[in-house]
Amino acid sequence: MSERLRVHYHLQCAPGEAAEEKARGIALEQTVELPDRVLSADVRQRMVGRIEELRALPEGGHGLIISYAQETLGGELTQLLNVLFGNISLKDGIHLARVEWPEAVLGWLGGPGHGIAGVRERLGVSERALLCTALKPMGSSAEALATAAHEFALGGIDIIKDDHGLANQPDAPFLDRLRACSEAVARANAQSGGRSQYFPNVTAGYAELPSRLRAAKEAGCQGVLINPWITGLDAMRWARDEFGLLLMAHPAMTGGLLRPDHGLAAPLLLGELFRLAGADAVIYPNAGGRFGFSEAGCEAINRALRAPLPGIRPALPTPGGGMDVARAGYWVKQYGLDTVLLIGGSLYAQGDIRTASRALREAVEQAGVGA
Amino acid sequence: MSERLRVHYHLQCAPGEAAEEKARGIALEQTVELPDRVLSADVRQRMVGRIEELRALPEGGHGLIISYAQETLGGELTQLLNVLFGNISLKDGIHLARVEWPEAVLGWLGGPGHGIAGVRERLGVSERALLCTALKPMGSSAEALATAAHEFALGGIDIIKDDHGLANQPDAPFLDRLRACSEAVARANAQSGGRSQYFPNVTAGYAELPSRLRAAKEAGCQGVLINPWITGLDAMRWARDEFGLLLMAHPAMTGGLLRPDHGLAAPLLLGELFRLAGADAVIYPNAGGRFGFSEAGCEAINRALRAPLPGIRPALPTPGGGMDVARAGYWVKQYGLDTVLLIGGSLYAQGDIRTASRALREAVEQAGVGA
Repeated sequence: MSERLRVHYHLQCAPGEAAEEKARGIALEQTVELPDRVLSADVRQRMVGRIEELRALPEGGHGLIISYAQETLGGELTQLLNVLFGNISLKDGIHLARVEWPEAVLGWLGGPGHGIAGVRERLGVSERALLCTALKPMGSSAEALATAAHEFALGGIDIIKDDHGLANQPDAPFLDRLRACSEAVARANAQSGGRSQYFPNVTAGYAELPSRLRAAKEAGCQGVLINPWITGLDAMRWARDEFGLLLMAHPAMTGGLLRPDHGLAAPLLLGELFRLAGADAVIYPNAGGRFGFSEAGCEAINRALRAPLPGIRPALPTPGGGMDVARAGYWVKQYGLDTVLLIGGSLYAQGDIRTASRALREAVEQAGVGA
Repeated sequence: MSERLRVHYHLQCAPGEAAEEKARGIALEQTVELPDRVLSADVRQRMVGRIEELRALPEGGHGLIISYAQETLGGELTQLLNVLFGNISLKDGIHLARVEWPEAVLGWLGGPGHGIAGVRERLGVSERALLCTALKPMGSSAEALATAAHEFALGGIDIIKDDHGLANQPDAPFLDRLRACSEAVARANAQSGGRSQYFPNVTAGYAELPSRLRAAKEAGCQGVLINPWITGLDAMRWARDEFGLLLMAHPAMTGGLLRPDHGLAAPLLLGELFRLAGADAVIYPNAGGRFGFSEAGCEAINRALRAPLPGIRPALPTPGGGMDVARAGYWVKQYGLDTVLLIGGSLYAQGDIRTASRALREAVEQAGVGA
């Protein structure tokens, strides 16, 4: 394993722009932010990113590998993000395809607090794909959301999370919703013998985040939903260390970084970075839904979430976003049992959400048998 | 002033995609996340974004205005970001050109704690453009950075900030650097009668951010540098309320959102949102430097930072990024006196940074006279 952080880029040069110059520009921009001629030999040698490989690609553009000394990161996730894409986010034609992680960096990032095995244990689900749904719509009262939560739990949905847009709006303030929904799910579990869990959305401002997490823990929740690209990615890692809850991460606001011409590959951002920052499960827009992700792209995110990384627990892919009940079995076969299927609208559209949930649960259990 | 948040979009439709459907999709996606047919009349009426205007544009694409009820925001900046671009960040061809802010929303966002007048007062500079430089490169010792800070202060630079990539790396750990640089600048001020200020970079993880801010305040710093798109935008607002320091915001990692085809207009993100979240000064990549911003684009950011908004102080544009000393006078004339010129590399490249800074200061004072 390399001692340096090796970042693989795909460059597209503008007319008149030389790949060598662009590569050297990145190596300087992301570290010392000075022209080469101003640097001391010591700083140049120790701090500037090293161009390890640069080659023209048959499909166009250039493949580039730059390695960075761990000292540039200072052991902080915030500065890691800065080195990866801070200033160059403001440039053009730079795509980060992949990162080779030094073991020491993995060590201080830490990854999921629970991982796939931990989530399965807390939810009591060992041998099938997991099911997740979302409480919605915004504008419903806490009581109405709790009624839906109760029905979903009786229908056998494992994780009943808040819609990621449910924050602290007057129709269903966070604490009212937390109380009503966690009680409703507990009541359903007592009735059915199930182990469904309510995951409230704790996404909030810097000052409010701790109290939402504390309230969730005190209400007996096993996990929460968080939008880490809105709270700041490190806030999720902090939540992992402080509260020990299962963390389901939502991709809101990441899309700007997922452009094919300039940005981060989705498996790098939603797969590795979210996982390394503590997500036990990561929601992403599934292929065939209302977002434009391809099936191959989704499989690549799945692999990034589950792949062996020294000392880092694997995390659960959670494809969602316009997923259809009728296709649930297909996705389980395609993506494997270590997947959380997030299905919301398609259950609501059927009217009787308990019955719709039961049918979904059966379909997924059967898909498991054949897989 | 409207009671609803009115968001102006520019849509580009893919082949086979209808503008009406795309517009309706945004209005649903950013609020209730359910198909229209599943909604109650009450929720549809109160919560779903309203399409106020949709028209084909002569230059291609469609202009769209959607208004959102304030209730969708729940009084939180995090949820405001979510409504503006959370899920639709994951789609294509949606550009946010501008937002019309309800006065109540401006009220709870709050804006800069000090604004242009407050910065001028703390720095003792009333009638000229302000000067800023950056301590670098990463890899230098705290003592070497402090020596540079001392020279910049004697040269008359108003704000001597850390490079945004200086975090807590072993060569110059935060607390060592803070102590050394703030002492060096104070010593220079005592010697020269000047009022230069050292702004340390406090960007850090969730748990560390408060201690960096506290240390900066205790060291007597008047202001700090922060990368709010890495800490989470609301962390900056929280810092404003807790510490009362001048806040200079850096645009690292925002570039992914500034794409012309899909994202937020730079004046909206770096101008209005950064300002509303508490930045007294906002750094952006100046035209003609090593980033691709146009002069007209920079002027638009300047306007957004300074434009009257009820109850919100104006903030200081801080163009930087490969700015040349020789052009400083031009930029002051172009952008006006309420501007901070951020010039780093061009001063280092001259070798004697005190002399180079003095020449810059004189150029800017002369530009002020003629302006």
